[in-house]
Amino acid sequence: MSDAGRTLFLHEDRFFDPEPEVRTFARRLYERTSALPLVCPHGHVDPKILATNEPFSEPASLLILPDHYILRMLYSQGISLESLGVPACDGTEVETNPRAIWEIFSRSYHFFRGTPTRVWLDFELAAVFGVTVQLNEYTASRIYDEISEKLASPEFRPRALFERFNIEVLATTDKATDSLQQHRAISQSDWGGRVIPTFRPDSLFAISNPGWRREIDELSRRSGRDAETYDDFIKAIEQRRKAFGSLGATATDHGVETPRAERLNDAEVRRIFDGALTGRASSDDQTRFEAHMLIEMAQMSRDDGLVMQIHAGSLRDHNTLVAQGFGPNRGGDIPVAAEFTRNLRPLLEEFGNDRDFHLILFTLDESTYTRELAPLAGHYPAVRLGPPWWFHDSIEGMRRFRESTTGTAGIYNTAGFNDDTRAFCSIPARHDLSRRMDANYLARLVATHVIDEDEAHDMAHALAYDLARTAYKLDANG
Amino acid sequence: MSDAGRTLFLHEDRFFDPEPEVRTFARRLYERTSALPLVCPHGHVDPKILATNEPFSEPASLLILPDHYILRMLYSQGISLESLGVPACDGTEVETNPRAIWEIFSRSYHFFRGTPTRVWLDFELAAVFGVTVQLNEYTASRIYDEISEKLASPEFRPRALFERFNIEVLATTDKATDSLQQHRAISQSDWGGRVIPTFRPDSLFAISNPGWRREIDELSRRSGRDAETYDDFIKAIEQRRKAFGSLGATATDHGVETPRAERLNDAEVRRIFDGALTGRASSDDQTRFEAHMLIEMAQMSRDDGLVMQIHAGSLRDHNTLVAQGFGPNRGGDIPVAAEFTRNLRPLLEEFGNDRDFHLILFTLDESTYTRELAPLAGHYPAVRLGPPWWFHDSIEGMRRFRESTTGTAGIYNTAGFNDDTRAFCSIPARHDLSRRMDANYLARLVATHVIDEDEAHDMAHALAYDLARTAYKLDANG
Amino acid sequence: MSDAGRTLFLHEDRFFDPEPEVRTFARRLYERTSALPLVCPHGHVDPKILATNEPFSEPASLLILPDHYILRMLYSQGISLESLGVPACDGTEVETNPRAIWEIFSRSYHFFRGTPTRVWLDFELAAVFGVTVQLNEYTASRIYDEISEKLASPEFRPRALFERFNIEVLATTDKATDSLQQHRAISQSDWGGRVIPTFRPDSLFAISNPGWRREIDELSRRSGRDAETYDDFIKAIEQRRKAFGSLGATATDHGVETPRAERLNDAEVRRIFDGALTGRASSDDQTRFEAHMLIEMAQMSRDDGLVMQIHAGSLRDHNTLVAQGFGPNRGGDIPVAAEFTRNLRPLLEEFGNDRDFHLILFTLDESTYTRELAPLAGHYPAVRLGPPWWFHDSIEGMRRFRESTTGTAGIYNTAGFNDDTRAFCSIPARHDLSRRMDANYLARLVATHVIDEDEAHDMAHALAYDLARTAYKLDANG
Repeated sequence: MSDAGRTLFLHEDRFFDPEPEVRTFARRLYERTSALPLVCPHGHVDPKILATNEPFSEPASLLILPDHYILRMLYSQGISLESLGVPACDGTEVETNPRAIWEIFSRSYHFFRGTPTRVWLDFELAAVFGVTVQLNEYTASRIYDEISEKLASPEFRPRALFERFNIEVLATTDKATDSLQQHRAISQSDWGGRVIPTFRPDSLFAISNPGWRREIDELSRRSGRDAETYDDFIKAIEQRRKAFGSLGATATDHGVETPRAERLNDAEVRRIFDGALTGRASSDDQTRFEAHMLIEMAQMSRDDGLVMQIHAGSLRDHNTLVAQGFGPNRGGDIPVAAEFTRNLRPLLEEFGNDRDFHLILFTLDESTYTRELAPLAGHYPAVRLGPPWWFHDSIEGMRRFRESTTGTAGIYNTAGFNDDTRAFCSIPARHDLSRRMDANYLARLVATHVIDEDEAHDMAHALAYDLARTAYKLDANG
Repeated sequence: MSDAGRTLFLHEDRFFDPEPEVRTFARRLYERTSALPLVCPHGHVDPKILATNEPFSEPASLLILPDHYILRMLYSQGISLESLGVPACDGTEVETNPRAIWEIFSRSYHFFRGTPTRVWLDFELAAVFGVTVQLNEYTASRIYDEISEKLASPEFRPRALFERFNIEVLATTDKATDSLQQHRAISQSDWGGRVIPTFRPDSLFAISNPGWRREIDELSRRSGRDAETYDDFIKAIEQRRKAFGSLGATATDHGVETPRAERLNDAEVRRIFDGALTGRASSDDQTRFEAHMLIEMAQMSRDDGLVMQIHAGSLRDHNTLVAQGFGPNRGGDIPVAAEFTRNLRPLLEEFGNDRDFHLILFTLDESTYTRELAPLAGHYPAVRLGPPWWFHDSIEGMRRFRESTTGTAGIYNTAGFNDDTRAFCSIPARHDLSRRMDANYLARLVATHVIDEDEAHDMAHALAYDLARTAYKLDANG
Repeated sequence: MSDAGRTLFLHEDRFFDPEPEVRTFARRLYERTSALPLVCPHGHVDPKILATNEPFSEPASLLILPDHYILRMLYSQGISLESLGVPACDGTEVETNPRAIWEIFSRSYHFFRGTPTRVWLDFELAAVFGVTVQLNEYTASRIYDEISEKLASPEFRPRALFERFNIEVLATTDKATDSLQQHRAISQSDWGGRVIPTFRPDSLFAISNPGWRREIDELSRRSGRDAETYDDFIKAIEQRRKAFGSLGATATDHGVETPRAERLNDAEVRRIFDGALTGRASSDDQTRFEAHMLIEMAQMSRDDGLVMQIHAGSLRDHNTLVAQGFGPNRGGDIPVAAEFTRNLRPLLEEFGNDRDFHLILFTLDESTYTRELAPLAGHYPAVRLGPPWWFHDSIEGMRRFRESTTGTAGIYNTAGFNDDTRAFCSIPARHDLSRRMDANYLARLVATHVIDEDEAHDMAHALAYDLARTAYKLDANG
């Protein structure tokens, strides 16, 4: 068959174990969950898309540029970010013809074989855009035209897609100092879609960062409270959490290299904060301040009810050349080993026994699944495990997560799925993959007589829908 | 079907791969081992049960309270330890109605779906107690009555169960200063069951612990030798090991957070010991003393022949609230990363090349299986690998253990199975699961033509029976 | 059946998943690659074997003594190295009768059940030597005679085997100061086999090692340049790399306990080097010097095009008794945890964005596959992942490698297979196992509809052949 004519086809049994008994159970379990609404409690979609509801412009800027999974793979194969049209920080000229970018990508599509990116993209092409031939250098142009045409139609406006995707709720991730203007616009519009912000204060705690002082000024401005003492800083943060909550936020998010928590005494934390204000914060000060603020955040969550998420273990901007040349989130973040048992203990000692406080943990270090995370979630009332994250939201990554955590934590101490994406059109693809992998995992438990099929049906429903709603307290604010 | 009427049924092919070829081999291999006597060389059953042979009182205190797997899961789901009748250290009133405790547990039984606890419990209910309906809130009371009635009958006395379980030998774990009165009673009785102690001296080495001084007094009393100098301390320990040996002990056990071994020079160890006696032992002193004593214990094992077990990597009593409120072993222990290669080297340099010295290693850090433990066991004559431990004695944990260690260490450098339980009635369930998982592992090797079926039969027998006997030197003392 | 008469039989579906659909795809994929030439870009065969082309003497010295996998397993089971004829450093008498050694080995062959050694050995016996009965104590002598007879025939001379094995290129590993006399002899002979050296300078960087001074003298002698200043040392190394290149080398190799890279400033590195020359290098100096030299090696590779390999994480000669008694590579090396993300960053900052610089990473710490290595290879243009190494080149190890790395790095950032062996006759066995495991991995992807079968055929070819050629730049020098 010619490469130009290969059919693109989403097999109905895709990702299921080929063993007939397992496959049969998996099919039945997946049928139970495939049409459930999508609960999206954590992700990085730009709310402006849904606030303005303007048509997406064309395929490359929609599907390639916001996707650091794609950028990193192409870059690893020697394709420059300039040729992909990634804007250079210094204004260097980069490719501006989206069709040329699309063709590079299409020509390189085989590099993604065996990766989740390929799985998601094929789903988007076939199920979202109705493309019927496989993407490659021969079909690139034809598919580009086909998608472009669709994007111009009303059915492909963001809100129409939101509804077609059957999204029940979509949480974005927003700086603590964000104006929340887009969220306000959505909530004040006559559109009924539930789009909520998530409070992400990381940059407020990076006290040795040259830009930190600007963050404090921004915080003061937004909160209407001069955040120039530690006490006012805390009060301003509380005010911002309240502002997020009033627009529907149910959660906060904390990205940390190490999940270290340690309460400093009052004098110490004030000394560090005051030093930081005058530009005298060492990197050690920052480490200690961040560890302290993690506990403060837990305490505020205990008080205001916002669910606390910790995403640990990414060394951001490992590739300085890429970070300085093209900014963050271009694929140059690399994981490091993480330690939770000792690092989180002070936080858990204070708040871990409170079932109303929800702490959702994410890791990039899979060796912590059985060793630390499942034992923590399988004991502390507050702790739940977030789904396999980032480098691990693949077929095998999802399999390893369930196989590693269920024995100790069960499934009812996990937080269901979240898609964690900035690529809006990949949302249904990601939920579909997760629901299929969970169906397949449960099917194996049924086929090996660990659970009954009716139990598996309950569990499949929980994993696809209920657990995310409960863990993220989405019912209360629905 | 109504929830009150679901049949409880142990499928004959449970836990076997559903692929028909693998399943067929697995069945045949399991048939070979299912009726072999149970060798139980490491566990935590209270010997008093078998010394007095009194009837068990009722289901909750038999099946729920001694099982920290159950307590931790229920606690993680927000169920208080008070409501489960766990005695509070400060005398706070807790639930005393065992039927109420049983009902909470039954109502929460779905939380255990996919965990080994569920697998063990279903086996106990069905195979030990003859229960024929699934446990849930509707059947709780009926099953409670059914078990209670059985417990009152002679067939369910501890010794009768011991015989029905076909236990060939059961090792308990006992403090170095234990009176061994229960073991003496058993050995002096006319009952022929082989129940032996295991020498566990951890608390004697915790020199910075406030209770340590009391341990030394106890040691002096038990050994009849004033253990107030390091030399006498050593001699008293040797005396206790001999006392254990005279009651059939073949092994010692050492629980350590880190498996660090390092011989101190004489002056140093004496200085630390003397300091400890006067209450001046720092936590650093303790770390060094424990590392030194690990080598001393190896040397004594080399000399007196007791098999040395090291269980590494549990951070005990991580949850202070639970530990202070309800004591140890309530589910609040959390693993930490372990390092064996460098830490154990000094011990292995001295004794690792001696095939008569048996050192059995256990880990809670699965990343050490392929990286450190299998290479150590696959080289040092003294080293054997203990079975997957605690959080890892699940279906997937057992699979990972064999898949990770066999390539480098083979199976003949592993120590067979041990059930490691304080829940007496779960012993056959745990051996059954292990024998099934090993049969299934070997069946895959046969089906993929890595070994022949007759080799697999030899290996299945070794894994279920011979290796534990050899590793723990149980023949010599039989 | 009597043990003396069991047929040795390589099943045509060996190592393939027994599920019929997967097995069918695996067969077809393997058919595509099974006859491809063997590309052997990294290994430890002694080039003298092929330079002299003398007949191998007898089975024990050919198959047992050079194989540390065999020695370690036998030693772990209490069989002394003396009884295996391993020469003792102090001249102690050891077994000299090869037939006796062979019989010990044959009697112990069951210890290898489930290990890759057994898989390789069976392949060698059956496919290389035409043995038709299984090896055990009863058949030992007969098989010994059969192999001995064959070794005396012209068809079993090294070069004849090289051709029969269909080796396209064989890289050896050679000290930086090696005379390369054997390689020169091969290249000047009329034989057309492509055998190339690999530059391994580790011992030149071990500045605190008592033998280091001798290494420097040797370097001076070989390079014809007095390497007594740091600048001359660097130039001498450049000269040696050139000499290696002129005999066809395309790569360097670096064995490090920790993959730490850090550039020292000029004054510092000179101070350390000068100190080392006068015997005043501390172990800390050595650590820093090695970290610095890793960056120097990367820079030279960038300049002269030699592919850079880093093999990290082996603690060599862990068992001092064995190392002092019998020398290195007797099975007493034990892995340690490795950290790549932070350690390699300085090197990657300088050279990681250069697609013409090839850096191939190997680990003994599988927890780094998903956490560090796949993310590094899936981003940096220079980085490729070497195949599962040493303790991990087993059936399960190969499976884990692909399942762990493909989701993030794909297959096109991996470097294909290398056999890494000093056991010449095991080369085809190792490639066969790798090709089968890759076929099986891809077959599962096809059966679960992740990729199409024609894509799998492309990928199988790449994994078996193309990727090694590209990663090691073997085309350019072909």
